[in-house]
Amino acid sequence: MKKWTIGVDLGGTEIKFGLFDDKLQKSWSIPTNTQEQGKYIVEDIAASIKKCCDESGITKDMLKGVGIGVPGPVLKGNVVRQCVNLGWGQINIGDELSKKLGEHFGCDGEELLICAGNDANVAALGEMWLGGGQGCTSIVMVTLGTGVGGGIVVDGKILNGIGGCAGEIGHIICVDDADLVGRCSCGHKGCLEQIASATGIVNYSKLYLEHASEVSVLRDIWKQKGDITSKDVLDAAKAGDMAAVQITDKVFMYLGKALAGICNIVNPECVLIGGGVSAAGEYLRAKVENYFKGYAFPGTEDTPIRLATIGNQAGIAGAAYMVISKNE
Amino acid sequence: MKKWTIGVDLGGTEIKFGLFDDKLQKSWSIPTNTQEQGKYIVEDIAASIKKCCDESGITKDMLKGVGIGVPGPVLKGNVVRQCVNLGWGQINIGDELSKKLGEHFGCDGEELLICAGNDANVAALGEMWLGGGQGCTSIVMVTLGTGVGGGIVVDGKILNGIGGCAGEIGHIICVDDADLVGRCSCGHKGCLEQIASATGIVNYSKLYLEHASEVSVLRDIWKQKGDITSKDVLDAAKAGDMAAVQITDKVFMYLGKALAGICNIVNPECVLIGGGVSAAGEYLRAKVENYFKGYAFPGTEDTPIRLATIGNQAGIAGAAYMVISKNE
Repeated sequence: MKKWTIGVDLGGTEIKFGLFDDKLQKSWSIPTNTQEQGKYIVEDIAASIKKCCDESGITKDMLKGVGIGVPGPVLKGNVVRQCVNLGWGQINIGDELSKKLGEHFGCDGEELLICAGNDANVAALGEMWLGGGQGCTSIVMVTLGTGVGGGIVVDGKILNGIGGCAGEIGHIICVDDADLVGRCSCGHKGCLEQIASATGIVNYSKLYLEHASEVSVLRDIWKQKGDITSKDVLDAAKAGDMAAVQITDKVFMYLGKALAGICNIVNPECVLIGGGVSAAGEYLRAKVENYFKGYAFPGTEDTPIRLATIGNQAGIAGAAYMVISKNE
Repeated sequence: MKKWTIGVDLGGTEIKFGLFDDKLQKSWSIPTNTQEQGKYIVEDIAASIKKCCDESGITKDMLKGVGIGVPGPVLKGNVVRQCVNLGWGQINIGDELSKKLGEHFGCDGEELLICAGNDANVAALGEMWLGGGQGCTSIVMVTLGTGVGGGIVVDGKILNGIGGCAGEIGHIICVDDADLVGRCSCGHKGCLEQIASATGIVNYSKLYLEHASEVSVLRDIWKQKGDITSKDVLDAAKAGDMAAVQITDKVFMYLGKALAGICNIVNPECVLIGGGVSAAGEYLRAKVENYFKGYAFPGTEDTPIRLATIGNQAGIAGAAYMVISKNE
């Protein structure tokens, strides 16, 4: 009867939705209205869910519940501590969404199961359910985007941490001062994010090029376009540009070393690498795995390092799976 | 009716036992017989448990079960992968102990609940139940002894990892080459254990003293006794010996930094420091906490750093608690 679940990925500019049974059946998105401290967001979500259900002929009795990933730490009981991007302070997203859904569906909202989680953690769960971690119950996922995010799943459940701060892989301090430009957004110096994010790769590349003398296509690009991107650097490395190879090897070394340390702690079934930078694909994966093996404790050194596969859909999938796995 | 639980801490030289209701009521130990690949160990344990029960008037109907911590990785279903110290290869300690207990108690051994775990992980659980982590459900424990061990508890359960290798804090690679002598026992270079264990502190002290010129009581001790101990170094630091302060501050820095990284991953309620080196007490705790705060991500920086309090009893307590918490 209750075969449908909605997964919501709440971002700072866009809210993505997915309608799931045992896989994704429909997805859509709406813009995020961050006006007045994001006070319209929950109502917008509830209205959009109702609209989809109406269009698909889904009544409340056919709905298991709604899962939602939010861009901030989530405590027990669906309490969101803060979402700076949305303008939210502490809010019980479970209660709020329940109430709004109840209004739309003309029922007591508590009939619907609501599960909330941090977006990076939820994406890890989504990759485990339908992506690169399929068949596993315990994974570590690192997302290399503008920043470096992470999510950890143990025995099929998100590792949340007591304050919703588990899985903050990007802020492990492991980078030597000599390889760094400035400080991290978190205020510290030496965070993995400072070298392994798209921004970090660019910063480190410029630092490297300023101090090295070898010819590199990256100098030409920098001169012509006035800047370089992490994709420029990874493409150049793949094409055999020696400076780019040196640069990316350093990045992969730090990433492999950090992941080895994390696997000493969590000993997962596999490690997934996702985010924009992971578009570098097998070249990146194989190199990171190589460094990983060099730093991993015997017993975790054979942990497979894989690429994430469902990209932007991981958020909605993981959100839905929080609900689905809770019912199981 | 079933109010009693036995906790067993199986070590390479000694097997410790504890009889628990809601606290420790009786403890004893027997030597570990490692002859013939440790084939007598399980029988010795079963016989010793039966003897205690007889002496205390405890019948099998009054016994919830037996928990056991072993010096090696433990997989799901009480499967011990290997215990080098005991001469054991892979063995299902649950089945074996069940059978032997059944023989002694004249019953089907399956009536008794058996739970096995890695000794370091089990000790962390013990400290959470009756020691420095009381009242918490989620802790990280690091044990500074001859090596550096660790255990992680999440939501009241040991984080085991897929291959029983979670919590290997000592083998996170985080120490600069310049601060190291040789390689770690695991084959790598840079493991936390290489500087924060009792052995590591001594090695680093000697390295420091060989390259520094300042007067230090440690030089005198080294000359007089032919060697120094980690206790000598910590005592000297507490007494204000400048070289010893420099040395221990470096050790505390690495420890604080590694613990900060771990808390970024696990976000526990508290961190416990145990093992022989932690006898340095509040001096050590306060310094490590200070470095920890300097490296921790905002959101985990206020995680309390505490000392473990039940020492050698943590193993038997945690072993018993695996059984007790499973029944709850």
